[in-house]
Amino acid sequence: MTSLTLYEHPLNEQVRIYLRLEYLLDQLDEVSGLSAPCHHIQFFRSLFDLLEILEQVQVKADLAKDLDKLKKKLNAWAHVPQVDQQQLQQLLEQLAEHQRAVLQAKRFGQALREDRFLTSIKQRFSIPGGSCSFDLPIFHHWLHQPLAARQNAINGWLATLSPLRHALAFWLQLTRESAQGGHVEVKQGFYQQDADGACLIRIQVNPDLGVYPLVSGHKNRFAIRFMPFDDDREVADNMPVFISVC
Amino acid sequence: MTSLTLYEHPLNEQVRIYLRLEYLLDQLDEVSGLSAPCHHIQFFRSLFDLLEILEQVQVKADLAKDLDKLKKKLNAWAHVPQVDQQQLQQLLEQLAEHQRAVLQAKRFGQALREDRFLTSIKQRFSIPGGSCSFDLPIFHHWLHQPLAARQNAINGWLATLSPLRHALAFWLQLTRESAQGGHVEVKQGFYQQDADGACLIRIQVNPDLGVYPLVSGHKNRFAIRFMPFDDDREVADNMPVFISVC
Repeated sequence: MTSLTLYEHPLNEQVRIYLRLEYLLDQLDEVSGLSAPCHHIQFFRSLFDLLEILEQVQVKADLAKDLDKLKKKLNAWAHVPQVDQQQLQQLLEQLAEHQRAVLQAKRFGQALREDRFLTSIKQRFSIPGGSCSFDLPIFHHWLHQPLAARQNAINGWLATLSPLRHALAFWLQLTRESAQGGHVEVKQGFYQQDADGACLIRIQVNPDLGVYPLVSGHKNRFAIRFMPFDDDREVADNMPVFISVC
Repeated sequence: MTSLTLYEHPLNEQVRIYLRLEYLLDQLDEVSGLSAPCHHIQFFRSLFDLLEILEQVQVKADLAKDLDKLKKKLNAWAHVPQVDQQQLQQLLEQLAEHQRAVLQAKRFGQALREDRFLTSIKQRFSIPGGSCSFDLPIFHHWLHQPLAARQNAINGWLATLSPLRHALAFWLQLTRESAQGGHVEVKQGFYQQDADGACLIRIQVNPDLGVYPLVSGHKNRFAIRFMPFDDDREVADNMPVFISVC
């Protein structure tokens, strides 16, 4: 059986930023253990993209606020008889730990912005092909350091992002687990639904249907138009799609 | 023994562009056979960087001209007795073939600029984290196509760059092979030399010396300042460095 393709769509600006950051942090994770120069080039590209977002947005304050909201939600479950109180307590403890780490951290990305080597190469990376040996001989020297030294530097940079990474992963995991939804029948490639204060929609589609979703919406209502990937192919009249709202 | 780190520095604008293009084409080659999403993301980043350079500069005309100059140089060797005439003839035939391919090709990158899928995703790739599933659901659908289909598309895009790739590799190879140079003794981290109509300098340094070169210069003269990678370390009074001029 073909595995479904998952599309996520944020319904507010914070979650939009969170998903972008998660996407870039995942890329850093994927390439950070690889040793070829092309992987290191990608590591720095993703790292500088991440830094640019962290410069534009006060992620620390937003994330602290969202963790606090989550705490209130979890606390509200404390008096519901069917809830596993031990598990709830565990989640609340984890949450408190992430909150502490986020609040104690410097502004996210600050340590990387203060790193002399990163600062010296960052700007050239935005030029097409700008990390060539004649553009950035210092980076070229770095690429030829022993693997252990490079790995050490990479681990050091990634460590400064840990509070962000772990708190974000925790918040996104609990948000995704709060999803409510199920199979829906999409007619003529269009679907809409009320959302009632949601922040994220998850859409799972069979890739064999040859369509991808274009979503528009806000916290109370969203609409999805399914587009054919191949212009010559028609969108099926009826399509089973799995949609959940978080 | 530690292998030397090679730094190349162009002495004119064309060679500067050629080296950038080669750098990006090498990156495309390195990741084009890999299958993880992170490698595909890098493939498109490098491809769009390449397209941006090809949009800004008339590389086709420059390369055709430089191949023509190379032909004149090679022809001048035809009456020199010590030259292996058979090998020379072979090089001239290869050169004629590359010239034909370059002249017959559309403007480099034109076919990629006309590709509907590439056009639809190109712009978002310049936004930090802009290739997320909610930013580019069409790209996300593409990433979930069977590997053979993705590989097929990648090979098709790369094939349109073949005339550029092969002619550029040929010109750079012959230029690099024309290098004249040898070991020099760098004193107090500084070196300068007359160049007499050169277009490219190649500098080979032992990475254990902890320095990287900053080059300034033009076709008739260049100067190199060797900088310490680690601020706390001094540049040695005398350093053996291999320098060749093409």
